[in-house]
Amino acid sequence: MNAITALAPKAATLPEGLSEITYARLMRASTATLTTILFKRGFRNCFLQGPRAINPAAVRVVGPAYTLRNIPAREDLDHLKVFEDNNHPQRKAFEDMPAGHVMVIDSRGDARAASAGSLLLTRLLRRGCAGIVTDGGFRDTPEIEKLALPAYHVRPTAPTNLILHHAVDVQTPIACGSVAIYPGDVIVGDGEGVVCIPAHLADSVAEESETQTVYEDFVQERIDAGDTLFGLYPLTSPQQAAAFEAWKTARGR
Amino acid sequence: MNAITALAPKAATLPEGLSEITYARLMRASTATLTTILFKRGFRNCFLQGPRAINPAAVRVVGPAYTLRNIPAREDLDHLKVFEDNNHPQRKAFEDMPAGHVMVIDSRGDARAASAGSLLLTRLLRRGCAGIVTDGGFRDTPEIEKLALPAYHVRPTAPTNLILHHAVDVQTPIACGSVAIYPGDVIVGDGEGVVCIPAHLADSVAEESETQTVYEDFVQERIDAGDTLFGLYPLTSPQQAAAFEAWKTARGR
Amino acid sequence: MNAITALAPKAATLPEGLSEITYARLMRASTATLTTILFKRGFRNCFLQGPRAINPAAVRVVGPAYTLRNIPAREDLDHLKVFEDNNHPQRKAFEDMPAGHVMVIDSRGDARAASAGSLLLTRLLRRGCAGIVTDGGFRDTPEIEKLALPAYHVRPTAPTNLILHHAVDVQTPIACGSVAIYPGDVIVGDGEGVVCIPAHLADSVAEESETQTVYEDFVQERIDAGDTLFGLYPLTSPQQAAAFEAWKTARGR
Amino acid sequence: MNAITALAPKAATLPEGLSEITYARLMRASTATLTTILFKRGFRNCFLQGPRAINPAAVRVVGPAYTLRNIPAREDLDHLKVFEDNNHPQRKAFEDMPAGHVMVIDSRGDARAASAGSLLLTRLLRRGCAGIVTDGGFRDTPEIEKLALPAYHVRPTAPTNLILHHAVDVQTPIACGSVAIYPGDVIVGDGEGVVCIPAHLADSVAEESETQTVYEDFVQERIDAGDTLFGLYPLTSPQQAAAFEAWKTARGR
Amino acid sequence: MNAITALAPKAATLPEGLSEITYARLMRASTATLTTILFKRGFRNCFLQGPRAINPAAVRVVGPAYTLRNIPAREDLDHLKVFEDNNHPQRKAFEDMPAGHVMVIDSRGDARAASAGSLLLTRLLRRGCAGIVTDGGFRDTPEIEKLALPAYHVRPTAPTNLILHHAVDVQTPIACGSVAIYPGDVIVGDGEGVVCIPAHLADSVAEESETQTVYEDFVQERIDAGDTLFGLYPLTSPQQAAAFEAWKTARGR
Amino acid sequence: MNAITALAPKAATLPEGLSEITYARLMRASTATLTTILFKRGFRNCFLQGPRAINPAAVRVVGPAYTLRNIPAREDLDHLKVFEDNNHPQRKAFEDMPAGHVMVIDSRGDARAASAGSLLLTRLLRRGCAGIVTDGGFRDTPEIEKLALPAYHVRPTAPTNLILHHAVDVQTPIACGSVAIYPGDVIVGDGEGVVCIPAHLADSVAEESETQTVYEDFVQERIDAGDTLFGLYPLTSPQQAAAFEAWKTARGR
Repeated sequence: MNAITALAPKAATLPEGLSEITYARLMRASTATLTTILFKRGFRNCFLQGPRAINPAAVRVVGPAYTLRNIPAREDLDHLKVFEDNNHPQRKAFEDMPAGHVMVIDSRGDARAASAGSLLLTRLLRRGCAGIVTDGGFRDTPEIEKLALPAYHVRPTAPTNLILHHAVDVQTPIACGSVAIYPGDVIVGDGEGVVCIPAHLADSVAEESETQTVYEDFVQERIDAGDTLFGLYPLTSPQQAAAFEAWKTARGR
Repeated sequence: MNAITALAPKAATLPEGLSEITYARLMRASTATLTTILFKRGFRNCFLQGPRAINPAAVRVVGPAYTLRNIPAREDLDHLKVFEDNNHPQRKAFEDMPAGHVMVIDSRGDARAASAGSLLLTRLLRRGCAGIVTDGGFRDTPEIEKLALPAYHVRPTAPTNLILHHAVDVQTPIACGSVAIYPGDVIVGDGEGVVCIPAHLADSVAEESETQTVYEDFVQERIDAGDTLFGLYPLTSPQQAAAFEAWKTARGR
Repeated sequence: MNAITALAPKAATLPEGLSEITYARLMRASTATLTTILFKRGFRNCFLQGPRAINPAAVRVVGPAYTLRNIPAREDLDHLKVFEDNNHPQRKAFEDMPAGHVMVIDSRGDARAASAGSLLLTRLLRRGCAGIVTDGGFRDTPEIEKLALPAYHVRPTAPTNLILHHAVDVQTPIACGSVAIYPGDVIVGDGEGVVCIPAHLADSVAEESETQTVYEDFVQERIDAGDTLFGLYPLTSPQQAAAFEAWKTARGR
Repeated sequence: MNAITALAPKAATLPEGLSEITYARLMRASTATLTTILFKRGFRNCFLQGPRAINPAAVRVVGPAYTLRNIPAREDLDHLKVFEDNNHPQRKAFEDMPAGHVMVIDSRGDARAASAGSLLLTRLLRRGCAGIVTDGGFRDTPEIEKLALPAYHVRPTAPTNLILHHAVDVQTPIACGSVAIYPGDVIVGDGEGVVCIPAHLADSVAEESETQTVYEDFVQERIDAGDTLFGLYPLTSPQQAAAFEAWKTARGR
Repeated sequence: MNAITALAPKAATLPEGLSEITYARLMRASTATLTTILFKRGFRNCFLQGPRAINPAAVRVVGPAYTLRNIPAREDLDHLKVFEDNNHPQRKAFEDMPAGHVMVIDSRGDARAASAGSLLLTRLLRRGCAGIVTDGGFRDTPEIEKLALPAYHVRPTAPTNLILHHAVDVQTPIACGSVAIYPGDVIVGDGEGVVCIPAHLADSVAEESETQTVYEDFVQERIDAGDTLFGLYPLTSPQQAAAFEAWKTARGR
Repeated sequence: MNAITALAPKAATLPEGLSEITYARLMRASTATLTTILFKRGFRNCFLQGPRAINPAAVRVVGPAYTLRNIPAREDLDHLKVFEDNNHPQRKAFEDMPAGHVMVIDSRGDARAASAGSLLLTRLLRRGCAGIVTDGGFRDTPEIEKLALPAYHVRPTAPTNLILHHAVDVQTPIACGSVAIYPGDVIVGDGEGVVCIPAHLADSVAEESETQTVYEDFVQERIDAGDTLFGLYPLTSPQQAAAFEAWKTARGR
């Protein structure tokens, strides 16, 4: 468990409602594993379609969702002056979101203008936030590629958000990547993309992910060694089941 | 003005904030004319992309927007039992929307499941509501085609909304057909589609639409008579300008 | 039940595995009602996305699916000579499909060339077939619009199928309109579109559809009369429940 | 040939390069038949994808293409004042296109703003033009639906063209509905859509279309009478071939 | 020829029907060159639209196609238990496909759920298979990026295939990336994507690709040296033609 | 200014109409900054949607647009022989475009066949051209990835342009990535994508970009240091305004 603990931030900095062990387990789980566990529980639509990581060196993120919703811009309401108002929902969101959270932005899947840029993302990083996801695009991506903040989007896009997006409210349930996101749901990102775990299932999904990951590590090793999939994946062969038990014992997992 | 007044509901039934004269003028204006007038004021994105009228005999509608927002459904939250709750946002919206209003539904442009069906639309009609618009689809469209309620959607779709849509709140600003809709904006529908007029511009746009419609009626008559577009449309020829003045005088418009 | 029986073909002509009562019930059920019943049984994806009826006077169809699958055309294999071979899968399908069946064509959702045209559809009609569905388009649609064969497609398209489609086999499971279609599944079409009922569920779904249709007829009547949705739809009010019982008794339904 | 001649305008009014007989033959041919004949000559991409007729009573059109090209609008160049210039390419095109021609507009497949409206289309009609096609949309479609001008578009759209389109030049080769259109190509429209015949092939395609239409009329009659497709369509059976010869003789075709 | 031979597997391990020389030649040819050679033979649609290589270090693949076809999943048929059956088409395909072959998966272009994941791909690698292609997505892509198996997909996607795909049969003709794939066709992948060569043309296309590649190497060298395209590409200048002959002689190509 | 000057080509090689200082300023500006400056001037649609850089080491480009327009290919006109004609618009464009210019190709957003390949791009590089952009795809991308020519496209695609594209003319106004491009407009590309600056605004936009970049560098430094966005971005706080002045003085910017 040492390795896991090493990954975790100090307990004091974990956001409310996210336990240290759940955080640690989800930091080790792949989004592929998590979607399978959620499928077992009847959830078919929890992987965000579209968003992918910008910075390959900063792709692991676990944290509660803090939502920001955009509607289409309107010429008389969305001009550069609006940012002079500290209560503008986009700017306020970047200052208000608590540390450890992941901002999830509903951009209606429209990447023709930016959801945010590197300056705002840097602010999130400095404030101790965990990451950011949009189903649109970010601007200043050459800078974001070097930023230590897990950031997920659909594609780079230079135009300012005002051209297309009007930030309208925060912390309401939203759509992102065709998935329902409720504030507080647990967002997990890896090199494949982003999954959303309903808040009340985070602990149990995290627990099962650990068991599942141990099993998949065993399967990987056996397949690498030349074993057939049959009986191994899924584990229907008594011989492989016994081998798995022995393997776990030997490794203390 | 008699003709216009005839079209208008009794003043007592007009929703708050929509004057009898504005209502009457907008009932005569085409959505094409209105988009041009809004373009003059700097608005390029006020025509809803996608929605079209279902019942060709019920296509004219004018009324303030009452908004309903959907996010993607989630299997544990969206099942048939939810409708037993009278506070379910979709059902409540259909009972709460004031007479004379137009319901505008944000369905994220997804018509793979229905935004509503003929039973709910009949209820709106009975309650004196003015119309309904979605950027998804309605079900029971063979019945809706016979209903005296102006209803606009993208295409017919049989599946119940629960398969895809979660009604989450009402009377917040939304997106519909890629246009920003604020509660109270004035929705105008005709045989071409639906336009959204920002609330504070409704009176002035309506007034200009009357002038513009008179002019376009004149142009239509001259083109029918064989006149060239040059000097007539737009009206840059002194001869045509004089003819227009005479034409208006002769018709008392 | 007389009305229903009147709609049904003589029992002798019903395809194997489709009982007279199930046929009659499904001919009365709307695709909207059927998708709700299938949703109750856990099926979310049974309405074909895209296909709609061509001839508004010929939209009701019930029959077992007979499938035809297309892959992309290849220039050396798909030229006009191929139709001289009576074993060409497309032509053979139109001669082989048993009476009472509905041909369902997998066109990969591509309507840029036709899946078939009016001559072939007329042949189906003469052979006593029940209908035809494609997730592409048909050609000769001005003629098909007058044909008494329920035919569903995405949009009219003139080019011969050979330009884009290669008919490869029949009676295998296919995709049509993003729905899985297994040979023998029961296809139901109405003015809204097409639903696919898994074969083993046809009888029970048909039975429930009758109950559901009776209920919806009652709801329609009450809403027409001005009743609120609450307590009525769904039927949670004891008063409305009692009214429904009385209504059914009075009408012998 | 009397029937055909009756359809044709007086020879004097036919545009240069389009003979009376070719015009008459193409007015009788379906776009489906024409695409097959072009496919035989190696052309796979001559049916315009998207455009369909607006007025069901005015769908037959044959005439040489007169092209108008749009590029995206730019805010400083595309405002309402531009129409005061009689040399504006859009307005000039509607006054310059010779009688008997078909205007084909390249709108880059974008129907979010109109390619033109009913006033301009009425002008075309008055000037003796044959028809109009866009791969975008027209505005004022409720009026166009009543206009005796064959007009083809993708969908109704209210916004003025200036919002999205900049008319840039006429009579250059363009794309429309993903098909190459060269000025002078022969455009044929029917209830299914629009096909473009390369200018140098118009006479030979028209001639073959007559033969093909006679054959298809025969096939239709035989299928109506219950004959199998085999040997008939295509005509590989000696018996059917003999029947066809007799049929033609009997009808003088 | 030494260089080529070095790339080839031992003849004994080449799949039936793929000669050592054809394999070697195709391993050197780019997909761009191959599409041009196929275009000369009348084939316009042989490059798979969408799939691209996952692991930049494992992009060259040549082998006969082994096809796997998916249709949409159905809730009652597609659950995690199905993999306990060793005859499940997906799992069986991964155990059955002969060494040296390339699995091509028809996922209907839908990447919202995975076509397969890293464990199954590792099994292919261990079994001596040549590569894998889908027009959907793979899961576990961070692992696949490190795997020495050429793997082509549209985008990463975490959800298990069961959510969306039902593996239905193997070794039938399929569509992949909008191209027809017949079992045994020769699949060639490089850093640009994947091309499918009809089986009966593999030897002649491979032979011509060698000639073409030699010519393109010469052109590259001349352009690098500052020569004009004219006369060189294509080779219409006698001087350049002579230079090419001398160049070939000097290099023994 | 030394750094900037170092980036600039010798004045003698700058294309006519592009001053050394404007070139230098635009080489330093990000496309994100430029779209904001253009938005202030009323331009909402100047970022090309789709194209991205192929070679990460060659992404900065500034130069006047030289346009090449494609329409759909036609089988009888577009075959390999056409390249033997030195006046073929595509080949001529690659030989004619002046040094320092950026070729912008209208491929109608269609990447199913290549707009050009590495041999032609190498020729551009040797001729001193500045870069190339298409809203389709290039072929030979593995080679282009190593080429020192800034090249922007939507995705790699192997098929020769003749399969889909017909180069029809050069130096006319075109659409690329849904943006209007007039010959001579100033094209700027960076790691995010490509922006088009109307020719008459290039100098003033470039000048403002320098001021804006200085300000954004300051903001970046302050945010890195932990400052709040409020008052800083935009610069409404007197304290931050004073800090900015001091910062500029200290750095001589």
